[in-house]
Amino acid sequence: MADRYMNLDTLRFILFEVLEGDKLNQYERFADYDRASVDILIDSVKAFADKELYPYFKEMDEKPAHFTDGQVLVHPQIKEIIAKGAELGLIGSGFEYEIGGMQLPTVYNYALVHILDCANNHATGYGGLTTGAANLIRVYGSDELKEKYIPKMIAGEWGGTMALTEPQAGSSLSDLTTEATPRDDGSYDISGQKIFISGGDHQFCDNFIHLTLARIKGAPAGTKGISLFVVPKKRIADDGSLQSNDVVTAADFPKMGQKGYCTTHLIYGENGNCQGWMVGDPNQGLKYMFRMMNEARISVGCGAASMATAAYYASLQYAKERPQGRKINRKGVKDVSSDPVLIIEHPDVRRMLLLQKSIVEGALSLILEASKLSDLHTVAEGTDSEEAHLLLELLTPIVKSYPAEMGKVSIDNGLQILGGYGFTEDFILQQYYRDIRITSLYEGTTGIQALDLLGRKVPMQNGAAMQLFAREVSKTIEEAKKLELRESASELTHRMEQVTETTGKLLQYAAAGEYDHFLADATVYLDFFSTFVVGWQWLKMACRAKEALLSGDGAFSTDFYESKLHTMRFYYKYELSKMTSLAEVLVDEQSLTVDSFRAEILG
Amino acid sequence: MADRYMNLDTLRFILFEVLEGDKLNQYERFADYDRASVDILIDSVKAFADKELYPYFKEMDEKPAHFTDGQVLVHPQIKEIIAKGAELGLIGSGFEYEIGGMQLPTVYNYALVHILDCANNHATGYGGLTTGAANLIRVYGSDELKEKYIPKMIAGEWGGTMALTEPQAGSSLSDLTTEATPRDDGSYDISGQKIFISGGDHQFCDNFIHLTLARIKGAPAGTKGISLFVVPKKRIADDGSLQSNDVVTAADFPKMGQKGYCTTHLIYGENGNCQGWMVGDPNQGLKYMFRMMNEARISVGCGAASMATAAYYASLQYAKERPQGRKINRKGVKDVSSDPVLIIEHPDVRRMLLLQKSIVEGALSLILEASKLSDLHTVAEGTDSEEAHLLLELLTPIVKSYPAEMGKVSIDNGLQILGGYGFTEDFILQQYYRDIRITSLYEGTTGIQALDLLGRKVPMQNGAAMQLFAREVSKTIEEAKKLELRESASELTHRMEQVTETTGKLLQYAAAGEYDHFLADATVYLDFFSTFVVGWQWLKMACRAKEALLSGDGAFSTDFYESKLHTMRFYYKYELSKMTSLAEVLVDEQSLTVDSFRAEILG
Repeated sequence: MADRYMNLDTLRFILFEVLEGDKLNQYERFADYDRASVDILIDSVKAFADKELYPYFKEMDEKPAHFTDGQVLVHPQIKEIIAKGAELGLIGSGFEYEIGGMQLPTVYNYALVHILDCANNHATGYGGLTTGAANLIRVYGSDELKEKYIPKMIAGEWGGTMALTEPQAGSSLSDLTTEATPRDDGSYDISGQKIFISGGDHQFCDNFIHLTLARIKGAPAGTKGISLFVVPKKRIADDGSLQSNDVVTAADFPKMGQKGYCTTHLIYGENGNCQGWMVGDPNQGLKYMFRMMNEARISVGCGAASMATAAYYASLQYAKERPQGRKINRKGVKDVSSDPVLIIEHPDVRRMLLLQKSIVEGALSLILEASKLSDLHTVAEGTDSEEAHLLLELLTPIVKSYPAEMGKVSIDNGLQILGGYGFTEDFILQQYYRDIRITSLYEGTTGIQALDLLGRKVPMQNGAAMQLFAREVSKTIEEAKKLELRESASELTHRMEQVTETTGKLLQYAAAGEYDHFLADATVYLDFFSTFVVGWQWLKMACRAKEALLSGDGAFSTDFYESKLHTMRFYYKYELSKMTSLAEVLVDEQSLTVDSFRAEILG
Repeated sequence: MADRYMNLDTLRFILFEVLEGDKLNQYERFADYDRASVDILIDSVKAFADKELYPYFKEMDEKPAHFTDGQVLVHPQIKEIIAKGAELGLIGSGFEYEIGGMQLPTVYNYALVHILDCANNHATGYGGLTTGAANLIRVYGSDELKEKYIPKMIAGEWGGTMALTEPQAGSSLSDLTTEATPRDDGSYDISGQKIFISGGDHQFCDNFIHLTLARIKGAPAGTKGISLFVVPKKRIADDGSLQSNDVVTAADFPKMGQKGYCTTHLIYGENGNCQGWMVGDPNQGLKYMFRMMNEARISVGCGAASMATAAYYASLQYAKERPQGRKINRKGVKDVSSDPVLIIEHPDVRRMLLLQKSIVEGALSLILEASKLSDLHTVAEGTDSEEAHLLLELLTPIVKSYPAEMGKVSIDNGLQILGGYGFTEDFILQQYYRDIRITSLYEGTTGIQALDLLGRKVPMQNGAAMQLFAREVSKTIEEAKKLELRESASELTHRMEQVTETTGKLLQYAAAGEYDHFLADATVYLDFFSTFVVGWQWLKMACRAKEALLSGDGAFSTDFYESKLHTMRFYYKYELSKMTSLAEVLVDEQSLTVDSFRAEILG
């Protein structure tokens, strides 16, 4: 295990200097969150993560969650983590004071979740999903549901889940078949199966509250006939005691990574005795779920960026401690009589380190920006709120998929720095490598995110989100020009033109009704656009760093700010440049996966 | 487990139509290998792989090699595999008839190894490394060593290893410290430690013959003072009995993948009683080892390409069987009243399948081409032999690293096709995903291959290898033009110009003595050049496919040949295009990992 798993300075730099998060306290809901109080919160969560999460990270992989005798058993430390996390207010931290929350801005919530995810990504989901489930009840549920469930959930006594996926349907929610039959008492009989239910059952919560998508008998086909139900593992009797609600855990899926986090298979109503209570109105379930989806997707992106961050610091420590090989002299030879150098001296190792740094910090900046947009959407008014939402909608598929996809690449490079040791279980890199692979699949695969971006977000409201985005980018470019970052500003301008041209070209297919062509390379477009978005984030960070260097009164060291500028330049040279080739692919008119494709081609 | 793990037609197409391997029988050494006899060999090895290797693939992961009570235990099936593999002649298959070999051309050897690696990459190394070790004795050893060791090794009774790596030195062989002290009887006392010794010990061989690099007391520093020794686990007494040779297995490294293949830690001479016998002359050890390195590197590339091949077929089968989602109609909507389609109908899934196919078949073609060059180097005469060797030298780092690096990407796409199921241990994709990660590390990491390519192979003999390569590429381009593949030919011409220009620009740094700059982005150059080399392989395959379609008398179906053309076009659109961006990076003059780099930048 490495000495360090994240960087508090970088986190604070993004929160306070790049995003000016402390200005959020101008809104009444967030009035208590000045910089000092957030700093205390960050420090206390870091101390919690150091003590209760990080030391158990490897062990949770080695002693995975497992299903035995009809029961899911998870690592004993999960008990402490849930209890102390709840005590710190981390479950439902954004909820109103009156229902037990802290009214914490989302941007700070994700800053805290980032710390926890960096320390131990196997553990954070238990509280995170409980928050998500409770939040659905908070926003759409009746007062009765709220009173019955939320307090126990944010106390960590009861776990919560989001139960969407079914074996036959996967991401295709329109095909879900879990059935809800109205009962006389206003509740419903629930029957069906759900798979891949994270945190769905374990020995440390008294009850599990499954926010379950199901179809009321006779409801319309497809996604328009889906309703949302609270289905507890145990019903609450009138005397407050818990009794079985016929929700049976049939299995826990063994996985290649994130093994400490259970992934359950649930069967509802096998004995005709499973009761559910509807949340909100009938047939609105998917809409409710999707209003929450932005946050669920930020959360997956945050997990991925955090795993890659921790892996970065582990590989950096190795590079600073491991002597091996020698520098090449001016004659192109190595002097074998000299001592070996630390591997951080090798340009290729530096390249792999800078690549990681540029990915993980760029991703973190984007995640926190999106979180702040979510806050502004909630607390700002009028156009400010609308624009925040519009931009958040556009960025969400990228917030989810960039950290997942490029986080894989980042950790791959981290592992590579360790050479053969990286492949052995003696070192931690291989665990991050396995863990992160889930994040391209959770909450909509990368392909689904790509369709969301190009098929829905880019064209929505006649391209309003894209126009707004372009204005935001222009602001950053103008600022960079004033701060002597002229070269990077002009590079980003050029890349923005590439985005505009390429997007315009693709939209012509949509205009012509050729949707297959339009969307065939959506994943390539996602890669292309994401690379740009993170380039924009890097220019934002560079502006603040440059400003601090020019004024000389930044909160961090000169080295710190220079490191941001250097990493930005690295990203622009090695990563932003990928856009040229991706644009070539996107504007190429050959259609190899649509019209001219036949299955026989695959041999 | 999937029904199919490789494609015999593609293998035969490359062997006989692309490489015209059957013409090798014009050389006396290979006179027995006409097409019919090779076909029989292929079929018998496929039957062996079907029966003895593939069914145990998942189990070897679940019941890994492990160290217990001072002993390495491997899966029981390893016993069968070694015995039957030896019986089939697969250990030392290329050796002369008189010493028990089959004089099999290398190109066919790797065709067979490909089948085995596709079926079960955990099992093939045992025989493969035994062949490699025996081959060092065969080529450089005394008659006494040959007689004593080779027969038992190719019979599978004794295992062989290549013992290079030491804990403190890693890839930096100049720092190895294992010591050899001359004894009166002409042998040496050996003392030291070796790590990561694949196949180094297990319960199914009577003895292990470690081809060990060590330094004779007083030898020059660095790589010039390294000698090669045969160090058996057990010495052979005069009466033929085996007695302990003080080679102790200290551990087996638990790994994230390829778990059935043991990776041992050996301690030599802890009790001052370990004897070794020198192979060839003193201080020539590294030279000997490196003459064998081309084959060892082909072998790693073959392993990687094969894992990715098997993963491809597993994901293809899933895509053909799994219904999910619907096609978008001309109005951009999905008709939820229709049945779900098989996921192979989705363009994004097709893209992921074609990407895999283009990588794995391109890699296989390259590996077999390199193997054939190795044969020509051995059996041809004069310029033919020299040119084959020169081209092989240039291609070897790519043969090793392209399948490893792009194989990872390929399997990542395969896993993605399965959605959430891909991450679970119920499906095999996650095993391939973990297994392949070792191949970027084995036998010189990708960074080492990159330095070899740009620092050594490109400039060698004043660029002679590059010039020869360019001529070979031109031949393919000319042929493609004649075969109505004008567009692809002109694309490859354009890309060859990119290679020439970019390489020329980089060589200016070397000419100016700026070696750090010259080599700083060697890994990017490797990616750039490899992408081109595989593009060339695809045009070669396309030429043969087109020719067969035009003549109508090919050995395979029209679909088969069309699939090659389609995949070539896919590679050119989606993969070859990456070169544009990589060239941008390579010619960019900012030096971010050399002069302007300071460790503080990494935060």
